[in-house]
Amino acid sequence: MTATSGRPRRPAHHTPRHDAKAPRAAARDTRETDDRMLFGIHAVAAALDNPARRVRRLLATENAERRLAEQIAARKLAVERVRPKDLDRLLGADTVHQGIAIEADPLPEPELADLIARAGATESGPLIVLDQVTDPHNVGAILRSAAVFGAAGLLTTRRHSPPLNGTLAKSASGALELVPVCLVQNLSRAIDELKSAGVRVIGLDGEGETLLEDAPFNGPVALVLGAEGKGLRQLTRESCHHLCRIGTSNLLASLNVSNAAAISLHLAAMRRRQTS
Amino acid sequence: MTATSGRPRRPAHHTPRHDAKAPRAAARDTRETDDRMLFGIHAVAAALDNPARRVRRLLATENAERRLAEQIAARKLAVERVRPKDLDRLLGADTVHQGIAIEADPLPEPELADLIARAGATESGPLIVLDQVTDPHNVGAILRSAAVFGAAGLLTTRRHSPPLNGTLAKSASGALELVPVCLVQNLSRAIDELKSAGVRVIGLDGEGETLLEDAPFNGPVALVLGAEGKGLRQLTRESCHHLCRIGTSNLLASLNVSNAAAISLHLAAMRRRQTS
Repeated sequence: MTATSGRPRRPAHHTPRHDAKAPRAAARDTRETDDRMLFGIHAVAAALDNPARRVRRLLATENAERRLAEQIAARKLAVERVRPKDLDRLLGADTVHQGIAIEADPLPEPELADLIARAGATESGPLIVLDQVTDPHNVGAILRSAAVFGAAGLLTTRRHSPPLNGTLAKSASGALELVPVCLVQNLSRAIDELKSAGVRVIGLDGEGETLLEDAPFNGPVALVLGAEGKGLRQLTRESCHHLCRIGTSNLLASLNVSNAAAISLHLAAMRRRQTS
Repeated sequence: MTATSGRPRRPAHHTPRHDAKAPRAAARDTRETDDRMLFGIHAVAAALDNPARRVRRLLATENAERRLAEQIAARKLAVERVRPKDLDRLLGADTVHQGIAIEADPLPEPELADLIARAGATESGPLIVLDQVTDPHNVGAILRSAAVFGAAGLLTTRRHSPPLNGTLAKSASGALELVPVCLVQNLSRAIDELKSAGVRVIGLDGEGETLLEDAPFNGPVALVLGAEGKGLRQLTRESCHHLCRIGTSNLLASLNVSNAAAISLHLAAMRRRQTS
């Protein structure tokens, strides 16, 4: 857990508010708990491992409980036994819950200044800035790559962003617990703050004049990505120091935004290795 | 359509076998048609644009038909009018069909020799080899990046691979029509054929001694990727010329296989630009 600095520790003897319930009772709670549910083995394991993550309830099949026995014991959490179809009903039939779900509080939010400080640390990867990327699978996948390549954090707007739970957490495969996420009202104002703090702001844009591999990656860097199809909004484009494109070969095909993020983060990591 | 060479052209005056049907009739056909269904705006548009793709039926909502009016007219296809919930019933409630689906024949399969010839062409990207990557979302996403970076094609096993339709085609966002896919019985034998033909075979492996960015990318290259978690099978590992790893920063996080493919294809494209 390297990326959770500054988050308050959960009291060691926190007692779960809910005792084991019959699955029917769990299913009836859908509306209240829906927006606080995390599911899937990796997402739940990482949440249980994260001392900053306050967990209210744990629902698990016998198999899933066995897989995470160690983390569950460390949390001293009561397990509400469910069958897979109870979770289907609670979370939706198309949810890949892998037999386990938790109800948890959102993580404490870092300040923009925290992210800027992290981006300025030697060896830190770039700060990822998302301009209205709304698909939770994509944002989750981007968080996963952000963790892999040591990104300083993720900055996005509070509106036009998917909730930091459920599908996003599942796609992040645990990385939601590792990468600090800062939500702001106004993205171009936040980008201005980054620039004032000496962060180099590189926007990814299919029409960018410079190839991303030729962009300067020295010093603290923020990489700005827009939604698939729409790309960066005009005001966001104008806020960037550089607009760069990823060199591609086929105009009939378009790059998925999470792949664009992974390529950019890897390129930044290569450049750090070359200069260190 | 640069990547469909060698595929037979559909006869120009092909007449659809099915006329417009009531939605109920469409829903009843599920079992027979399921394995030949493609859905989603981009996947269907690309299939209709591909002369090598024989289309048997087209089901569309009024909105979706309007979006693809040009392609549908060019195909002279009768449209079976459906409501979104008819497609939910036909394809499964969790399917993102975007109001359109076609029943189509599989594409003619290229020979391994065709892929080797393509990999040998100047400016060609690597050949992607998948060792039991079973998730259709991942294989679809890999095809999409393969199209973007001009990969020579995709080689995988006939067993332990997802079917080349439905979810995979949707995730590929049209790229299934652009990238030739060759299915073989025995992967390590196929890799031996690649090596005999002078293709450099680079396996991606988290334990690889060489960083991928230091691997030799000159001449025809094949990139071999395994399933998440499992990685390459022993025999596959032993078949590769080089085992390389992508340099990462965080041992708690793991790279998604489609992101690993995108990073590798981009790196190969960078190297081609540097040497050309």
